[in-house]
Amino acid sequence: MIDQQLQSAREHEVTDTVVASFGGAGDARFKEVMTSLVRHLHGFAREVRLTTAEWDAAIAFLTRAGHITDDHRQEFILLSDVLGLSMLTVAINAPADGDASESTVFGPFFVEDAPEVQVGADISGGLTGLPCWIHGTVTATDGTPIPDARIEVWAADDAGFYDVQYDDGKLRGRAHFASAADGRWDFWTVQPAAYPIPHDGPVGDLLTAAGRGPMRPAHVHFMVSAPGYRTLITHIFVKGDEWLDDDAVFGVKDSLIVPFVEHGAGTAPDGRQLDGSWSEAEFSIVLAPAGGQS
Amino acid sequence: MIDQQLQSAREHEVTDTVVASFGGAGDARFKEVMTSLVRHLHGFAREVRLTTAEWDAAIAFLTRAGHITDDHRQEFILLSDVLGLSMLTVAINAPADGDASESTVFGPFFVEDAPEVQVGADISGGLTGLPCWIHGTVTATDGTPIPDARIEVWAADDAGFYDVQYDDGKLRGRAHFASAADGRWDFWTVQPAAYPIPHDGPVGDLLTAAGRGPMRPAHVHFMVSAPGYRTLITHIFVKGDEWLDDDAVFGVKDSLIVPFVEHGAGTAPDGRQLDGSWSEAEFSIVLAPAGGQS
Ligand SMILES: [Cu+2]
Ligand SMILES: [Fe+3]
Ligand SMILES: [Fe+3]
Repeated sequence: MIDQQLQSAREHEVTDTVVASFGGAGDARFKEVMTSLVRHLHGFAREVRLTTAEWDAAIAFLTRAGHITDDHRQEFILLSDVLGLSMLTVAINAPADGDASESTVFGPFFVEDAPEVQVGADISGGLTGLPCWIHGTVTATDGTPIPDARIEVWAADDAGFYDVQYDDGKLRGRAHFASAADGRWDFWTVQPAAYPIPHDGPVGDLLTAAGRGPMRPAHVHFMVSAPGYRTLITHIFVKGDEWLDDDAVFGVKDSLIVPFVEHGAGTAPDGRQLDGSWSEAEFSIVLAPAGGQS
Repeated sequence: MIDQQLQSAREHEVTDTVVASFGGAGDARFKEVMTSLVRHLHGFAREVRLTTAEWDAAIAFLTRAGHITDDHRQEFILLSDVLGLSMLTVAINAPADGDASESTVFGPFFVEDAPEVQVGADISGGLTGLPCWIHGTVTATDGTPIPDARIEVWAADDAGFYDVQYDDGKLRGRAHFASAADGRWDFWTVQPAAYPIPHDGPVGDLLTAAGRGPMRPAHVHFMVSAPGYRTLITHIFVKGDEWLDDDAVFGVKDSLIVPFVEHGAGTAPDGRQLDGSWSEAEFSIVLAPAGGQS
């Protein structure tokens, strides 16, 4: 005879014992994080009545993820991304400020030493695609323009590849520049395409089993910092992209979807002559004050 | 101004979106397990307000665990062990039956092809340590003896090492045999010592940060099976061992602690002549009926 009360008591006793084993941790925050992790992990196992075969499968999955991970491939970050843990961590660490621009995932394609350019520069440097003029402002939440903010931008080309995914070692489609005295900025690049996250490993198999795809809707990355303001890490997404509702890493926010308006040949507002089509997008960057929960 | 309500709504929206993304999974059980995992993992991150630096540390930990794992070392199993997830999975899959022997962790030192021996055999085969006679019965929960049950046993030597941890490739201190017509069995081995789990990797660092040690109290492993009964995977622990309250993998149950009684030189109950000290332990194995939750 199975005794359900005894069974429940035994299961909870395991959890209590493990939680207590962290009682001697030297660091209070480590103890807080680990005991919460244990409680939620055990709560999961009890809730689903995790079978021995499923536990075996989890060990095998993590082992495969560990073995595919190297200097160029980070399967554990991909795992965190597709489980939404990355996006949740972003949300927790960039608290909502109704007036400021929303954050989203950082992604794996940022490069520390992108070239510094002047406002208005063309950073496409040979990436293929529709010429694309992106412009906007940087302001505080009260509307005050922020001059000299550092604006880092990076984006894929029209094949969905970043410069660092090509073998020639050349940086293209990425740069940093400073906002002008009135908070304005603009630059030229090419309109990026949607692209798949790496999906030939265990995370790809997980997506397949979930009936999910690996695609990310087309986007341009921004990282914007200025003294006294919280650094903003975000994207703008191309309105109308077919993957906006199915971003593999859950990075899309409505407020970050902007029209990329296509124009015919002619003169752009900054005076550039285009002999073919080009597109234009606008992004009003609003920075929250530094200092977190205030 | 941080808007706490908006913040909470945004965080929960991430979780809801991720849970919904598993809606198209082909396998209902996969969907159940993954959505529960997502909810508990997100619950953990929200509860502790997981920082970006902590998320980075978790990715680095898993990466290290993946890279130290090979055919002989399984850091993800060790991680599951020291977080009590292994022991909880055992508890879930061997439901409590007040009358049957309790289960504990399987451990990494079982070998499929241990030699078959007769009841009463000495299986120590050159392992060093105090000669140890272990005997008992196999019965059903109603007390009926179970003849011909398959009993697998394996244990460390008095230095805390299993045969497979030596380089000579010889199997020692492990065997399987069958219970007699009256359910009785006995064998000789050496009394095992306590031993540390491998702790020179990330799991060892985690134990150190937790103020925990890597030791497992001295024990003898058993796996007992018979048609019509649930297979029992368990240990007996040496009463009085100094690590009983601090088993690194939480495998100890009170009902599994048995006295290993030391005797002087002389004749053992089975007629064996000992010219030095020896010890004796008894284990009444009670198997639950097969068929799970009935
Ligand atoms: Cu939970
Ligand atoms: Fe990207
Ligand atoms: Fe062991």
